[in-house]
Amino acid sequence: MSASQSAAPSPASPAPAVEFWFDFASTYSHLSAQRIETEARARDVEIVWRPFLLGPIFVAQGWKTSPFAIYPNKGANMLRDMQRLAALHGLPPLIAPEPFPQNSLLAARTALAIDPALISGFGRGVYMAQFAEGRDISRPETLTPILDALGLDAEATLEAARADGVKTALRDQTERAMDLRIYGAPTFVTSDRELFWGNDRLEHALDWEIGAAPRP
Amino acid sequence: MSASQSAAPSPASPAPAVEFWFDFASTYSHLSAQRIETEARARDVEIVWRPFLLGPIFVAQGWKTSPFAIYPNKGANMLRDMQRLAALHGLPPLIAPEPFPQNSLLAARTALAIDPALISGFGRGVYMAQFAEGRDISRPETLTPILDALGLDAEATLEAARADGVKTALRDQTERAMDLRIYGAPTFVTSDRELFWGNDRLEHALDWEIGAAPRP
Repeated sequence: MSASQSAAPSPASPAPAVEFWFDFASTYSHLSAQRIETEARARDVEIVWRPFLLGPIFVAQGWKTSPFAIYPNKGANMLRDMQRLAALHGLPPLIAPEPFPQNSLLAARTALAIDPALISGFGRGVYMAQFAEGRDISRPETLTPILDALGLDAEATLEAARADGVKTALRDQTERAMDLRIYGAPTFVTSDRELFWGNDRLEHALDWEIGAAPRP
Repeated sequence: MSASQSAAPSPASPAPAVEFWFDFASTYSHLSAQRIETEARARDVEIVWRPFLLGPIFVAQGWKTSPFAIYPNKGANMLRDMQRLAALHGLPPLIAPEPFPQNSLLAARTALAIDPALISGFGRGVYMAQFAEGRDISRPETLTPILDALGLDAEATLEAARADGVKTALRDQTERAMDLRIYGAPTFVTSDRELFWGNDRLEHALDWEIGAAPRP
């Protein structure tokens, strides 16, 4: 992107920034959400939180639900792996959410209805409610205390999340994910459009952004 | 397993040992094969190389080929990720094998036809031929120089690989993988039957084996 185009908002800004693409129902996105700001600060990288819906992408791939629900051995080992990784990262013991996968529509719309500066706190709260407290994130009463803790008017925010503009914004965001060829979550996209899939690539993506990872 | 059973060969021996389950056509198994012995030595862990066939497991899951071939976005990003990781680990630049996935039957049978002490060297050689030299591992002429380098009679070894006993051993090994609920490769299985899936879990599995990873 040339300097003459800098008037247009763009993810390819000169300051180090990585887009964090996540679906609130994504299990491994929980592990990334809880630690991404710490890892980013250590490298002076800004994180742009990008909620989207995996559902339409999975449907386009021929899946009606999460691959962890489709393939039982994979699903069982994912949960055990998440338990081990939660212990490794010093996070609260993992609780398998019921139902699984959760409906993430309300949480995603709510994230797009609030001040972008608050999405990181909201995101961490929603994932903690789901994976450390076993709460159902499709219910407004799960989101209310999280919005309260951010100093927001929960009722007004949940009402704003139902606005047509927010619905359109989420659809647009999901279409952008498809355009980026995102196929799972979490996905990290660097300024130079390098795509890193999975919580295991968090550090790699941040290192890439600051030029600390070797270019093949 | 009690001491009274120690006369029977068992993977659950008291000395630290991790089973490395791999399919020769598996992309990420290449990255593990090239570094697992170094990582294991650093922790005084023995590695038991366990070649098996993913094909029957994929078929049982409803897949006719590799998920990387079924899902184009996933496949494209896997290759890019492999290129980045090869650079990170100081491995030769990755070459995408043709055809993909490769037919790994001959390589797997050959691995079971040789002295188990030589499987690690054979495995590294086969993966290098496939992913660093772009050779087709289903062809005997690809395997011949690898067997030569191990000091083996290549022609006699490839003949031995066609024996019924070897075919049965590979089928048994693949059935054991299914019994262990293995669904992909590489997979690492510790003495206490903890299952770690993926090259990204290599260090975690070894740390678990020596008690250096927290138990959830």
